[in-house]
Amino acid sequence: MNTVAATPQAARALAEHFRAVRARSLALAAPLSAEDAMVQSMPDASPTKWHLAHTSWFFERFVVGSQPGHAPFNADWHYLFNSYYQSIGPAHARPQRGLLSRPSLEEVRDYRQRVDDQVIELLQRDALDSQACHQLLLGLHHEQQHQELLLTDIKHALWCNPLQPAYRDDLKRSTGAALPMRWLPAEECIVEIGAPAWPAHPAFAYDNESPVHRVLVPAHVVANRPVSNAEYRAFILDGGYRQAAHWMSEGWTLVQNEGWQHPLYWDDSLEREFTLGGWRAIDPDAPVCHLSYFEADAYARWAGARLPTEFEWEAVAQSLPVQGNFADDDHLHPRAFTGESANPAQPLQLFGDVWEWTSSAYGAYPGFQPFAGNLGEYNGKFMCGQWILRGGSCATPAGHVRASYRNFFAPSARWQFAGLRLARGLA
Amino acid sequence: MNTVAATPQAARALAEHFRAVRARSLALAAPLSAEDAMVQSMPDASPTKWHLAHTSWFFERFVVGSQPGHAPFNADWHYLFNSYYQSIGPAHARPQRGLLSRPSLEEVRDYRQRVDDQVIELLQRDALDSQACHQLLLGLHHEQQHQELLLTDIKHALWCNPLQPAYRDDLKRSTGAALPMRWLPAEECIVEIGAPAWPAHPAFAYDNESPVHRVLVPAHVVANRPVSNAEYRAFILDGGYRQAAHWMSEGWTLVQNEGWQHPLYWDDSLEREFTLGGWRAIDPDAPVCHLSYFEADAYARWAGARLPTEFEWEAVAQSLPVQGNFADDDHLHPRAFTGESANPAQPLQLFGDVWEWTSSAYGAYPGFQPFAGNLGEYNGKFMCGQWILRGGSCATPAGHVRASYRNFFAPSARWQFAGLRLARGLA
Amino acid sequence: MNTVAATPQAARALAEHFRAVRARSLALAAPLSAEDAMVQSMPDASPTKWHLAHTSWFFERFVVGSQPGHAPFNADWHYLFNSYYQSIGPAHARPQRGLLSRPSLEEVRDYRQRVDDQVIELLQRDALDSQACHQLLLGLHHEQQHQELLLTDIKHALWCNPLQPAYRDDLKRSTGAALPMRWLPAEECIVEIGAPAWPAHPAFAYDNESPVHRVLVPAHVVANRPVSNAEYRAFILDGGYRQAAHWMSEGWTLVQNEGWQHPLYWDDSLEREFTLGGWRAIDPDAPVCHLSYFEADAYARWAGARLPTEFEWEAVAQSLPVQGNFADDDHLHPRAFTGESANPAQPLQLFGDVWEWTSSAYGAYPGFQPFAGNLGEYNGKFMCGQWILRGGSCATPAGHVRASYRNFFAPSARWQFAGLRLARGLA
Amino acid sequence: MNTVAATPQAARALAEHFRAVRARSLALAAPLSAEDAMVQSMPDASPTKWHLAHTSWFFERFVVGSQPGHAPFNADWHYLFNSYYQSIGPAHARPQRGLLSRPSLEEVRDYRQRVDDQVIELLQRDALDSQACHQLLLGLHHEQQHQELLLTDIKHALWCNPLQPAYRDDLKRSTGAALPMRWLPAEECIVEIGAPAWPAHPAFAYDNESPVHRVLVPAHVVANRPVSNAEYRAFILDGGYRQAAHWMSEGWTLVQNEGWQHPLYWDDSLEREFTLGGWRAIDPDAPVCHLSYFEADAYARWAGARLPTEFEWEAVAQSLPVQGNFADDDHLHPRAFTGESANPAQPLQLFGDVWEWTSSAYGAYPGFQPFAGNLGEYNGKFMCGQWILRGGSCATPAGHVRASYRNFFAPSARWQFAGLRLARGLA
Repeated sequence: MNTVAATPQAARALAEHFRAVRARSLALAAPLSAEDAMVQSMPDASPTKWHLAHTSWFFERFVVGSQPGHAPFNADWHYLFNSYYQSIGPAHARPQRGLLSRPSLEEVRDYRQRVDDQVIELLQRDALDSQACHQLLLGLHHEQQHQELLLTDIKHALWCNPLQPAYRDDLKRSTGAALPMRWLPAEECIVEIGAPAWPAHPAFAYDNESPVHRVLVPAHVVANRPVSNAEYRAFILDGGYRQAAHWMSEGWTLVQNEGWQHPLYWDDSLEREFTLGGWRAIDPDAPVCHLSYFEADAYARWAGARLPTEFEWEAVAQSLPVQGNFADDDHLHPRAFTGESANPAQPLQLFGDVWEWTSSAYGAYPGFQPFAGNLGEYNGKFMCGQWILRGGSCATPAGHVRASYRNFFAPSARWQFAGLRLARGLA
Repeated sequence: MNTVAATPQAARALAEHFRAVRARSLALAAPLSAEDAMVQSMPDASPTKWHLAHTSWFFERFVVGSQPGHAPFNADWHYLFNSYYQSIGPAHARPQRGLLSRPSLEEVRDYRQRVDDQVIELLQRDALDSQACHQLLLGLHHEQQHQELLLTDIKHALWCNPLQPAYRDDLKRSTGAALPMRWLPAEECIVEIGAPAWPAHPAFAYDNESPVHRVLVPAHVVANRPVSNAEYRAFILDGGYRQAAHWMSEGWTLVQNEGWQHPLYWDDSLEREFTLGGWRAIDPDAPVCHLSYFEADAYARWAGARLPTEFEWEAVAQSLPVQGNFADDDHLHPRAFTGESANPAQPLQLFGDVWEWTSSAYGAYPGFQPFAGNLGEYNGKFMCGQWILRGGSCATPAGHVRASYRNFFAPSARWQFAGLRLARGLA
Repeated sequence: MNTVAATPQAARALAEHFRAVRARSLALAAPLSAEDAMVQSMPDASPTKWHLAHTSWFFERFVVGSQPGHAPFNADWHYLFNSYYQSIGPAHARPQRGLLSRPSLEEVRDYRQRVDDQVIELLQRDALDSQACHQLLLGLHHEQQHQELLLTDIKHALWCNPLQPAYRDDLKRSTGAALPMRWLPAEECIVEIGAPAWPAHPAFAYDNESPVHRVLVPAHVVANRPVSNAEYRAFILDGGYRQAAHWMSEGWTLVQNEGWQHPLYWDDSLEREFTLGGWRAIDPDAPVCHLSYFEADAYARWAGARLPTEFEWEAVAQSLPVQGNFADDDHLHPRAFTGESANPAQPLQLFGDVWEWTSSAYGAYPGFQPFAGNLGEYNGKFMCGQWILRGGSCATPAGHVRASYRNFFAPSARWQFAGLRLARGLA
Repeated sequence: MNTVAATPQAARALAEHFRAVRARSLALAAPLSAEDAMVQSMPDASPTKWHLAHTSWFFERFVVGSQPGHAPFNADWHYLFNSYYQSIGPAHARPQRGLLSRPSLEEVRDYRQRVDDQVIELLQRDALDSQACHQLLLGLHHEQQHQELLLTDIKHALWCNPLQPAYRDDLKRSTGAALPMRWLPAEECIVEIGAPAWPAHPAFAYDNESPVHRVLVPAHVVANRPVSNAEYRAFILDGGYRQAAHWMSEGWTLVQNEGWQHPLYWDDSLEREFTLGGWRAIDPDAPVCHLSYFEADAYARWAGARLPTEFEWEAVAQSLPVQGNFADDDHLHPRAFTGESANPAQPLQLFGDVWEWTSSAYGAYPGFQPFAGNLGEYNGKFMCGQWILRGGSCATPAGHVRASYRNFFAPSARWQFAGLRLARGLA
């Protein structure tokens, strides 16, 4: 049974979803010139143009390419726009992506259009089998991940330019007030963590979220909201970046070698920060972001608390609607809570605003099975040396995350919209 | 209440223990010249002389130094022989330890003697308060850790010398036969993991083993013995080091950049290995060792299995006596099982022979509290980027490890006596 | 006395020269997209856009900027487009030039136009004093140097792109036949080397060509033409890149670490090479190029000869017209000699085709005085660790070089159009 | 004709010379423990033990080893103690020399003795042919070079140890007064530079000193003595290390990246310096030393002068006796001039005290021929990227240098006893 596009109605819905996601990527790139779209400011980041091409390559390779008689649009591009799928073949070196003046942005846009046309055509004549439909759906989630990376990467690129231009001048802005911090208690319990394995189960989830399994979560308290800019500034002013005792050993080495003194995009006055809308006054009530794991962890230790485990986080998130300040809100920056009548027993801003660093190293769930075939490389091979973040951010497309969603980055990474929420044990 | 040396009898026992541990370090250094004792073959390793001095500094700083009127034996040496205690003061750069021709090995031996004399004298006149006694006991466990490092570091140093001399020519050797590999089943259960916090509780444990907490361990099977050299050789001959699909992404990068083709001390024939007794034929039945986490993990994936979690490991180890091939056996190399009538329901060689890589990243237990004061830096600040190993090795002093003992190294580290045991989920 | 534009006629001529040089830079950039113009493929190279901007900045800073009432076109750009003039102020880090998506190529073109308008206007109303005129003239020579770098840098950039596109498809091509190699003798003599110091003397020369001084040149022979591709291929086929004995110690290290096996842009078949016109068959009769000093020196040793000193080179070049295959010929690649009736007593192709590595390290002539003021940094501070090349190349603008012209690059540099001519002592 | 040991008398003299040089090396190592003799504090330096072994290997390989029936003392040691003779075979990696705890210092001393016995025995029975005698003589000069390196390397090693012990406490010390600086004029002239090629010519010289050739030396003045500590301190106090304008571009980068603020072994007070006799007050009248070329060159520019060329230096040195403060004087540190009645027309301290950086890059003389055979690698392959120093130092064995002697080091090297003498052109 095709769980994805089994009916004409389902196929139409899938096509609609496809068009919307694909259009969204182009919309995100629209404020950028061909030159902007080519910048790679560090090996961890990729040019906008590369994101646009790679996500198209994903559909060409895993959906269109499996159709009988398909001729590649351009054989050389397989090498250029493969990211890290070793089982498919060699790939262009990641740190060299910024050298690709050819193909041009215009050619890449044309490539996108041709891929889109073929996919739509295949959907319209119901030519995709179940596996192809699954890979199509996976490709849409994949593209949404790259939409967020496109934003974080271009933010870094524009900040690296001495002129430090804004990505957009017309972003929405809003003010609010951080609620007082409160601890929400949780009893020891056994929690069903994770999502059933897709595509055997119809609801989409990445392989690393499966299988569902039971975890004993100890008694603890968790904060009702993320740590705010004002709270983090107090840590800085208290010498947080000058006292080794707060830091993991590796984090302290980075503080010294890299000269870290505040979150990535703050200036030395601690009053202003670089945003996708340019330089702005820091809102003391908004969640702090652009922290590495080491900074989040050090803050928590200074505050007499700790980061929650990913299981503690998921346990509380399971019962909440996936709502918040996502990229579709067009703020593209975390903001203070603006709700009227928050339920005091419920945590705020679990979803959206900032990814929340957890204390959990990224690893396999018991019984983990990577996706079948080449796509087995999607998540599994990075399960070493990365740290789990949860909940999505102001740069995450709405509808992309869920309670079981596991994001992961190196603990030194600072260019994502990453903040933290405090927790404490109850021993 | 002084839980360590509360009675004259206890004080005498502590003094005896102290003498024995201290003498053992000198015995390990005895086969080495002053020149051998100075080699630092890589930044991760330290010279024998530095181990001898640093362990003495630990007692001077944390036991003798807290006594009224104590004058440091040599003020400059605090800087030389502090390892990483930032709260105490700056330390000589780790990669420069091999440049310390002064103080001489003879001076360091003399330093050890003076520290020993003072400690014994303090014990004899019952001058150590409870805290000092605890730090004394911690210092002995600390010294045992360095005894193992002394062996692994000198093994690497002698191997780096083109002459590749043996550390000792008179090591014991024995042969055995690996039992057939069998899976031992375990039902899902909640396990009490860890050790009560010392010194509040009288039995010694490191801070990272505490507190005791409940963990849900899923249903699984675990192998009755470690993976053997013969089994690992089959992995190599099957192209294990040439297929990216077996490897974590970071491990595959190391395989290619470092040219890994077999365990660290094997030669290219896969027939011979360098040991503390010099070059020897590889015993196919003995546990494989000198693997990185990446190699252990790749082998397990190739074998259709996985590494056990540290909780799975501890759950099975809790009921077993801490017996095995430890350093005191004077083999200083893993050996095949030689027992007569092994209980088929029990796993073999959990303790001794080789440290077993687990699938668990090193992290804090819920409610973890570092040791008080400066010694809080002992374990806690390394809880990022390291991987857990369990069970001790042929280079670990007998009596040093226990079921709850958590060793940790970077996943790329190969110079420890580290191997693996397979596990599998039962979903 | 204004030696440059003392009369209206001279001013008109200078304006004409200015227009021509400035237009030539734009013409060189014309085949490139804004994306192409942004690539920086290695720290030694700069993006086309940066060359266009920096050369304009030079005129703004040193000519227009000294006029009363001049407001900078854009104050931030001083930082972006200063290259290495420390006495003027800090500069954007060289390896980051490829990140400058802003200002756009269009803005840089507009900047050029505004600088040009002002310079022309100043010339037309005779507002430039003698010093400003000199700096204007220096700026034109400076821009010509960057025209050559623009070509060598974009060649490298396009070659680094896996698609390896041609810079132009319409370059001129011609064939010829290398004349038999012959030795031209020179007696010991004292030679007047160098050029009188400009601007005290009216003929332009860089400061590093002055003062004129007497050098004793020993008896020697020099080859009638540069080494050809066929000759260099024989060196390769004879194992030239596999025998340490031919190489300087530092060069041999590079051969091994970088895996050098042939000139930079050759393929492994030794039959094809990448040119500004794309991949082509190697012409065996054309001068070999894209060699480092180490390769040129190794070839000479293998051939039982040596490189000429820069004085030997200049001594023979002084009597010859500055004619050859320069950039204006629109070949942009070295070519075999095509002349009909070469005078057998005269060396061929001293000028144009390929820069010729000499055996002379770059240093100051006796009595060397750097240009006055900030421009003293132009040449003098690089007189360490560089090697002298003479004669210009197929990428050098006609009219830019002369017999006394001293080019210099690191001995490891390969991306310039650099070859060699053999010499031998007569002892 | 055997120009070295053609008569029994000559053979006896050669044996005596051999014994003396070999004994001197042991005497230099005598103040050092086996541990001290093993330290390698940077890749450019070698352990004392390695110097003792390598110089013996040189005699074994080039003198004893060519005798019929010679069996190597220890075949493995060829690999360990070859320095850089690629034509002979692979060598142990230079930066790893400090790891060689085996062979022990005692074994190396024994090796020296066995080599010495064989050489003396061969000399006594007149068994060495002319070539062997030449290589023996070359080996003695080679050993003298290593005697100086032994001193500069151990000075660096002891300084790197935080305890900073003295090499010897019993060095001679003397005071003097720097004469006023005066310029000594020299007319333009053609000078015969260099030494006739040995061994064709009987007087020993390295291959890089030959052949004798004519050089036109321009009119200039040269200082009567080296620059003093007091003069160099004035440069520092005038901000010499803070103004880019004084420096070569590469030197300025080093000043900033390495934090250079004064000569290598000075402390920040500019009052004390580390010497082979330990920390001492800086003698303002003594020649400044432990400068890189970049520092010597920057000082000269600041002083309105320049460094002499190696030809200017040799021209004035040719007429002077080779006398001065050499290692045999047992000061092992530069000292102020103490002579009574210096001839005011003659330069002082050309020989001994400090090597004098010249403005000449190290290159081949016209007609240069490397030594025959494997020893051709002795000097020739380093003729790129090095700078010439002249005159010997307080660490050079008396009798080792001469007017034509060319020493060379990288321009960044600071651990040699290197200073400078000023010169100026007379245009």
